[in-house]
Amino acid sequence: MPTYQLYYWPVLQGRGEYVRVLFEDAGIDYVDVAREPTSEGGGVPGLLAVLNDGVGGVVPYAPPFVVVDGELVWQTANVLQFVARREGLLPDDAYVQARLHQLQLTVADVVSEVHDTHHPISSGLYYEDQKEEALRATQQFIDERIPKFFRHFELNLAQNDAGPGFVGDAMTYVDLSVWQTLEGLTAAFPKAVAKLLPDHPKLAALRIAVNERPRLAAYVASERRLPFNEDGIFRPYPELDLSVTP
Amino acid sequence: MPTYQLYYWPVLQGRGEYVRVLFEDAGIDYVDVAREPTSEGGGVPGLLAVLNDGVGGVVPYAPPFVVVDGELVWQTANVLQFVARREGLLPDDAYVQARLHQLQLTVADVVSEVHDTHHPISSGLYYEDQKEEALRATQQFIDERIPKFFRHFELNLAQNDAGPGFVGDAMTYVDLSVWQTLEGLTAAFPKAVAKLLPDHPKLAALRIAVNERPRLAAYVASERRLPFNEDGIFRPYPELDLSVTP
Repeated sequence: MPTYQLYYWPVLQGRGEYVRVLFEDAGIDYVDVAREPTSEGGGVPGLLAVLNDGVGGVVPYAPPFVVVDGELVWQTANVLQFVARREGLLPDDAYVQARLHQLQLTVADVVSEVHDTHHPISSGLYYEDQKEEALRATQQFIDERIPKFFRHFELNLAQNDAGPGFVGDAMTYVDLSVWQTLEGLTAAFPKAVAKLLPDHPKLAALRIAVNERPRLAAYVASERRLPFNEDGIFRPYPELDLSVTP
Repeated sequence: MPTYQLYYWPVLQGRGEYVRVLFEDAGIDYVDVAREPTSEGGGVPGLLAVLNDGVGGVVPYAPPFVVVDGELVWQTANVLQFVARREGLLPDDAYVQARLHQLQLTVADVVSEVHDTHHPISSGLYYEDQKEEALRATQQFIDERIPKFFRHFELNLAQNDAGPGFVGDAMTYVDLSVWQTLEGLTAAFPKAVAKLLPDHPKLAALRIAVNERPRLAAYVASERRLPFNEDGIFRPYPELDLSVTP
């Protein structure tokens, strides 16, 4: 089994955390390059070297990306699909693969929308320069989008009788990603999640089932798990912890 | 070969157009359900029936989605990957598949960001209620994001010596999607594209190569090709046709 080199920002969970969670839960050997010493090719310089120059002429769009067998793979959902397939964690059935991937791409939509709650005008501007707009965008997100996402995942969990996840009886990368998203939403919008999650019992049960996975639980308890913070996607800004409009 | 049922809004190009373009270019038999008569199960009611109730308990997130063999597949990038694979249009090599898909997911990022230029605060509010913010967001998009996307695609086209596309000598769904994105950006932001595209010769050459594909050209000239309009993603709002800041 080859060692995957994961490239992501070293001080935040962000999109990279979805890849870390899969590696950790599945017990896959990986190196989190930017968290290795700069003197050994790690740190942010180690990340930027590949981000800027690519590998063999192929240049990534943005972190996270992984290098394995000298090949570069990026875009979070694509990395997860690729790694799961390569590690034998994905059913062969093309329909099942598509069913999982479309849910993962909806997770990616949630993540982008969460980012836009604190950066509605541009990711190129500071949060401080778009705080008023962020308040408006967050209220809309909490009133309209979280309920839509929760309902979507709840419905698609309900059609699987074989286990607590979306497909069959084994956990997949999508189950882990939805769990990570719930963790992030809870960190950023605890009031809204506390109000909405009890109405989505399948989603709540998935969260408990993933919490009980031994390798993942050990990871979450370790120093390798970074806290949610104000550099990441899911930001615990008190002023954006809004309630659902009644 | 089965007939694919495509479900998308009948009066706009939007994300559905990426799927239409693949079907048309590859000569794949499909029915554009919502553009069929309502009396025959088409129209918006035909679309909403599947959007709300799903197929076999699986409920889609949003259009576009396709139904084939009684299975439902959604999320644009996932649909393209699935159809291309099913129709033998995708190389078997998992690395090549990942290489294509990561570019497609970056196209999806562009599309989302274009949508957010006219809807920066929320897709749940009218454009008219966020016009000031849209002006700010569009200027940022034109100054920071279009150059980044163009550079990214240009670099990754430059590493393929075998043809005008991203991988090998055959056109793939990604080449078509980048072409469609260039068409859309030109419709929405003609000034910016006119200024930036000449500095990206590989991207300009890809556009020409795709334009010359007979089946696609016939489609573009037909009534099946809807115009870009103010209901779609790429909206020709004159007030948002901003120049690149010098």
